[in-house]
Amino acid sequence: MSQLLASDRPVADPSGLTPPEARRLFRAGLRVPTPGWCAGWTQANLMAVPREVAHDLSVFAQRNPQACPVLDVAEPGAVRMALHEGDLRTDLPAYTVYRDGELVDTPGDVRRWWRDDLVAFLIGCSFTFERALTEAGVPVRHLELGVNVPMFRTSLRCRPAGMLSGPLVVSMRPVPAALVATAVRVTGRYPSVHGAPVHVGDPAVLGIAELDAPDFGDPVEVRPGEVPVFWACGVTPQAAVMASRPELAIGHLPGHMAITDARDTSYLVP
Amino acid sequence: MSQLLASDRPVADPSGLTPPEARRLFRAGLRVPTPGWCAGWTQANLMAVPREVAHDLSVFAQRNPQACPVLDVAEPGAVRMALHEGDLRTDLPAYTVYRDGELVDTPGDVRRWWRDDLVAFLIGCSFTFERALTEAGVPVRHLELGVNVPMFRTSLRCRPAGMLSGPLVVSMRPVPAALVATAVRVTGRYPSVHGAPVHVGDPAVLGIAELDAPDFGDPVEVRPGEVPVFWACGVTPQAAVMASRPELAIGHLPGHMAITDARDTSYLVP
Repeated sequence: MSQLLASDRPVADPSGLTPPEARRLFRAGLRVPTPGWCAGWTQANLMAVPREVAHDLSVFAQRNPQACPVLDVAEPGAVRMALHEGDLRTDLPAYTVYRDGELVDTPGDVRRWWRDDLVAFLIGCSFTFERALTEAGVPVRHLELGVNVPMFRTSLRCRPAGMLSGPLVVSMRPVPAALVATAVRVTGRYPSVHGAPVHVGDPAVLGIAELDAPDFGDPVEVRPGEVPVFWACGVTPQAAVMASRPELAIGHLPGHMAITDARDTSYLVP
Repeated sequence: MSQLLASDRPVADPSGLTPPEARRLFRAGLRVPTPGWCAGWTQANLMAVPREVAHDLSVFAQRNPQACPVLDVAEPGAVRMALHEGDLRTDLPAYTVYRDGELVDTPGDVRRWWRDDLVAFLIGCSFTFERALTEAGVPVRHLELGVNVPMFRTSLRCRPAGMLSGPLVVSMRPVPAALVATAVRVTGRYPSVHGAPVHVGDPAVLGIAELDAPDFGDPVEVRPGEVPVFWACGVTPQAAVMASRPELAIGHLPGHMAITDARDTSYLVP
C-alpha cells in the first residue's frame, strides 16, 4: 500500500501505522512533521557528529539530561542501531545538515552527506508522551490542528561540555489552567523523553518575546484560560551545533522525527 | 579533629561525617571500604580512561544503564567535577590502576599515574540506597558486620560498545524472604544508583559457583530463610577494562568509593 503513496498524498491515519510502514513512506519521499504518527511508538531526535566530537556530545547529554536524554547510540559509521532498524540516512521525513555550524541543507535523504566517522545519537522526544496527555484528558493543540509543535530557543544556557555549548530549546503546549497539574504529573512519568515541564507560564522569563513566532515548527494559539507550558526539547543539540560549530553535524528537521522500534511504555516509570 | 586521625585509627562514627571530612581522611591515608560512610550522601564508582576511549565508555554506560549509571563526567584531565569538589586523584580511600587490562597497582593516591588526557567518570553506587533499605526495615548484613559488600563477576555479558566489552558485575545482599519485595520496591526508586535487583535467588543462574568466595569485597553469610539478592554493580566498567585492555585505566578499589557532594535523595524518583 505504502508504495503507492506519493510524497504529497496525505496519509489517512498516520497514528495507526507501524514504525516500518512509516519509515517506508519517509524513505519513499514523504516529508511531514510526525506528531501523532505511529501511536504507541517512541519518536526520537537524531544528532550525528564526527567521532572526535561524539564524546563531547555524550557528556553534553549527560549534563543536560532533561533536554538530551540519550535513548541509543550507533557505532561509528553505522546507520542502524538496536532502537532503529531502519536506515538513519533515509528513513526520517527530513534532515538538517550543518557545516561549521551553518545550516547548509535540509534534504529528505542524507546519504550523500554521510561519512564513516559519524556517530549517530537518538535522543528522546516529547511527542512520545503526547498520547498519554490526551488519554489523561489534556488537549494537545498542535495535534488537534494537525501541525508541528512550536519550539523556541530560550535565554537559558545548557551546561557546556568540551567544545559544545548553547541555549536550551523548549517545545510549548498551551494547557488549560485546571489541567496543568495533570500535565506535569503525566509527563513527569516519562523522564527519558523530557519528563516534566521546565517552565509553566510567562515566556518572557525564558527570553521568549513572541509566542506567535517560534524558532522551529508552527505557531499555535494560547487561548484565554490556558497557560503556555514548556518542555525541554531534543532540538537543543542542534542549537549547540549552531553555537559551537563542529565541522559537520546531521540532525532531523525539527518535528520530523525518527520513529523507533521501542514502545512508548518502555519509557514510562512506575 | 580529622587531622589527628592516623590512617590506621578507626573512625568512631563514619556515618556522621560530611563528604569533605571523609575525603580529608582518605587524602591523609585512611584506607577503608566505605559502606555506611557519610549517611545521606551519594557514593560513586570512579573510572578514568584516556580521551580516545572515553566515547566508548559513554556508550558502554548508555547501553548498560543499570550497571553503569553515569552521575557526572569531568573535562579531559580535570581532577574535580561538579559532583565531587575533592581531588579525584587523592580523595578516595584506594584505587586500582590497569595497564593494558592488567591490574598493576592499588595505591591510595594516583597522582603519579594521572595524565592530562584522562577523562574521569563517576558512576552510581548501590551503597547510596542502603540507608533507605535499613530505614525500610531491610537488614544489610555487610553494614551490620562492618565489612565490604561481596561482589561477583557473572556469566552475563554486557552490551559491548566500541572497544569495550565484558561481564556484568553484581553486588549481593542476603534478604529475609518476607522482605525481598520491600527491597525491590525501595531500591527501584533509585534507578540512578543501580535501582532494582537484576536477579533474586539462585546464584548458579548468574554463573556464580561459590557465594562464599566473592571476586571483590568480603564474603557474608546467607542464613536460613534468607535469599541472595543481586544488584548491578559499578565495578562492571573495571571488568570491561580487564577484558578489553585499554592502554591505561584508573578506578577505585571496589567498595572504596568516591564520596560525592550530592544527597542520596537527589537520586530518589517520586
